[in-house]
Amino acid sequence: MALYVHKYGGSSVADAEKIVNVARRIAGVHHAGHQVVTVVSAMGETTDALIDLAHTVATEPDPRELDFLLSTGELVSITLLSMALRNLGYDAISLSGAQAGIRTDSTYGKARISDVDPDRIQRELASGRLVIVAGFQGLTPDEDITTLGRGGSDTTAVALAAALHADRCDIYTDVEGIYTADPRAVPAARKLAEVGYQEMLELAAAGAKMHPRSIELGAVYNVPIYVASSFSDAPGTLIHQGPDNRNMEDRIKVTGIAYQYNIAKVTVRGVADQPGVAAALFEPLAEAGISVDTIVQNTSVDRTTTDISFTVTTPDLPRALREMAALEPMLGTSSIMSDDTLASVSVVGSGMQNAPGYASRMFRILADGGINIDMITTSEIRISCIIGQDHAREAVRLLHEGFQLDEAG
Amino acid sequence: MALYVHKYGGSSVADAEKIVNVARRIAGVHHAGHQVVTVVSAMGETTDALIDLAHTVATEPDPRELDFLLSTGELVSITLLSMALRNLGYDAISLSGAQAGIRTDSTYGKARISDVDPDRIQRELASGRLVIVAGFQGLTPDEDITTLGRGGSDTTAVALAAALHADRCDIYTDVEGIYTADPRAVPAARKLAEVGYQEMLELAAAGAKMHPRSIELGAVYNVPIYVASSFSDAPGTLIHQGPDNRNMEDRIKVTGIAYQYNIAKVTVRGVADQPGVAAALFEPLAEAGISVDTIVQNTSVDRTTTDISFTVTTPDLPRALREMAALEPMLGTSSIMSDDTLASVSVVGSGMQNAPGYASRMFRILADGGINIDMITTSEIRISCIIGQDHAREAVRLLHEGFQLDEAG
Repeated sequence: MALYVHKYGGSSVADAEKIVNVARRIAGVHHAGHQVVTVVSAMGETTDALIDLAHTVATEPDPRELDFLLSTGELVSITLLSMALRNLGYDAISLSGAQAGIRTDSTYGKARISDVDPDRIQRELASGRLVIVAGFQGLTPDEDITTLGRGGSDTTAVALAAALHADRCDIYTDVEGIYTADPRAVPAARKLAEVGYQEMLELAAAGAKMHPRSIELGAVYNVPIYVASSFSDAPGTLIHQGPDNRNMEDRIKVTGIAYQYNIAKVTVRGVADQPGVAAALFEPLAEAGISVDTIVQNTSVDRTTTDISFTVTTPDLPRALREMAALEPMLGTSSIMSDDTLASVSVVGSGMQNAPGYASRMFRILADGGINIDMITTSEIRISCIIGQDHAREAVRLLHEGFQLDEAG
Repeated sequence: MALYVHKYGGSSVADAEKIVNVARRIAGVHHAGHQVVTVVSAMGETTDALIDLAHTVATEPDPRELDFLLSTGELVSITLLSMALRNLGYDAISLSGAQAGIRTDSTYGKARISDVDPDRIQRELASGRLVIVAGFQGLTPDEDITTLGRGGSDTTAVALAAALHADRCDIYTDVEGIYTADPRAVPAARKLAEVGYQEMLELAAAGAKMHPRSIELGAVYNVPIYVASSFSDAPGTLIHQGPDNRNMEDRIKVTGIAYQYNIAKVTVRGVADQPGVAAALFEPLAEAGISVDTIVQNTSVDRTTTDISFTVTTPDLPRALREMAALEPMLGTSSIMSDDTLASVSVVGSGMQNAPGYASRMFRILADGGINIDMITTSEIRISCIIGQDHAREAVRLLHEGFQLDEAG
C-alpha cells in the first residue's frame, strides 16, 4: 500500500461533471489499494471572480480580508469533491488548510508554509478515509487565514507529501506533462518522461508551467513529483532526483528550451564604480518586493563610473523605475533608461554542466536566425539570452531544432 | 460607551451597494462612541445557490460536507463588509464562527451552540476594532464546521450578545419590526413598540418572522433584542423582559395575531386506550426529527379504543405517515387518516393569562365569519385554532379587527 498526494488545479474541477470525473479517478487509486490525499484548487476562475467582487466594495481590499475571502474558493471545491466521492459510495472527508495542519507566516497574499502538522490527516487516513485538502491556504499563529500566492496549491501538495512521507506527489493539470519546449510555440516539442529538480526549476523559472516554490520544496524533501493530465491517462513527466537515475546518453543532452515574455530591462548609466553602489541600487527593489532576474554590470572605461543593467517583469517596471528615480540624487550624474519589449530564451540541461560548447552553439543558432542578443546569463545548467520579444517564438523553435530536441528520444 | 451586537440578514447585504450601506450604518454607531460587533448572514440567496450546487455532484449531500460548504457564504459577506469598512477608513476585522469562539455540538445542519468563547472578540474590541462575525456557523469539539439551521444568524447574534454582556442585540432585517399581525395579510396591522419574550416566542412559533431559538436564548440570558429595518431609520420593536415594564393598560391586551400555513393533520383511529400507546406513537416521530405541534386525544366512547390526532408541517407529512404505517401492526385495528389543507391562527398576549373570555371571544369571531374550527390548543399566553387553509387569511383579518388591534395603541 502506497500513499499518494494528488493535486487537481482549477480547470480540472471547473464544473460538476469535472468534479465527478476527479472523484472517479481518486476512487480508482483507492481501488488499486492505495491511500490518497487530494489537494484541490478553486473551481475554474473562482479566485479571479472573488478578487473582482472584493473590488466592488473596496478600491484596495485589505490583504488579510482578501485572503480570508479567497480561501472560500477552495472550501467550495473540496466540499463538492468530498460529496461527489461519498455519492459514489466512498468514505471521504474535506479539510481546510487550517484543519489539514498547514501553518504559515502572516505575509498575506503570498504566505510561506512554516510547518505542516499532519496529525488530523493521518487520523483520517488511518480510519480508511479519502482525504480532500484545500490548496493555496494556511493558518497563521494568530489563527488567521492566509493564501500562498501563485502556484500555492502545488506548494500545498508537495508540502503535504513531504510531511506525510508520501510515495509520490501527482500534479494533475490541463497539460500532459513537461515538454522540451512550450508545445504552443514549438509543435515538434517532445514530452519528457523524467526531469531533474534543478532542470525543472530552470524550466519553471524560465516560463514552463509549474511554480518554482513547489519544485524547490520537492528538491529539499526529495519528493518525487509526477505531472500529468487530469483529462487523459497519457503518461506524464516525473520530476525527481535525476540525472543520476538516467542513462548516460540522456545525461549529455539538453533537456528543454524555455522562454518568458514580458521582460523589461532597466539600465542605470554612469554609476560611481565603488563598493556599496550595487547594494544601494538593489536593496530598495527587494524591499518593494520587486523580483530582479538578470543583472549585468559593464566594466567602466575610465574606471570611475560603470553601467548596471537588470531585468524585471514588465508589470513590475513602473515600480522599479520609481525606486530608481528616488535614488537619482544619491547616484549623482547617472541616467536611467528602460526597454520593455524584451523576452528571454533559455537552454536547460544538467548535461551542460562542465561541458563547453553549448553556449557558443546557442549563440550561433540565434545569429544564423538573425536574432540579436541583448544580455546573457548562465547558471550551472542553463544559458539564457535576453532578446527582442518579436523574435522569442522563432528563437525557441530554432533552438529546439538546433539542439535536436525535435527528434524522438 | 455601550456595546451592541448588530445582525444583518441576507437581504441587507445582497449586493455591493447594500454592503457599503451597512458599513456606513456600523460607522455611525462607532461615531456615536459605541463598540459594535456585527453578525452577518450570507449575501441574498447564496445559501440556496450553494445547496443547489451541492446537488449537482451528489443526490444526497453529506451533512458534514454540506455544512462546510454552506459556511463559505457567510465568509464571503463578512470579508466584504470588513473590506468596505476599511475602505471607508475604519479599522475592522472579520471573524469566522470558529474564530469568534462559537462552539457547537456535531448535529450538522442544525447544530446547537454549546458555548461561546469571547476571548478573540474582546481582544479585537479592546484594540478599537469593529468586529464582523459570520452568522449561522460554529465549530465542533473535533474542529469541524457546523451550521445552526434556520434562523441561525439570529441565534449567533443573541448568543454573542449574551456572552459579551452586550447592552442590546439589534436584528436588522427587511421588515420594520414586529406587528400585531402579518401586514401582508392585515393591512391595518400595527407595529409594536415592545413585546415580551414569551409573547414573541408564541408569535414566532406561530408564524411571525423571528426564529424561536434566538428569542429563547434572549429570554434565558435576558438580552434585550431590538428588531428594525436595515433600509430605514424607522423605530423598530424591542423584545425584552415585559410585560412588567409596560403600563397596566397594555397588560390586559392581546398583543398580536399569528398564523401558519402548511399545517397537516394525522388522525390515528381506534387505538387501544391503555398506557404507553401515546409514547409508542410519538417516540418514532421524535427520533425521525419530525416536530409535532398540536396533539388532541378524544375520549373513547366504549372506553377500549381512542382516536389521537396531531399536526405536523406539510413537508413532514409523508415521513410522518411512513412512521405511522410502520406502527400499524402494533396498533392493531386502527386506521390512519390525514389532511394537508390546514392552517393555524393564534391569538397571543400575556394579558390573556388567567383572564377568561378570550377563548370564547375568539371562537365567536371565527363562527361569525363562517369559519369552522378543526382543533384547538392553548398555552398560557396563546390560543390557537386549526382551520382550513382557505380561510386562514380571512381569519387573521377578522381576529385582528375583533380584538381591536386595528385601532392605534
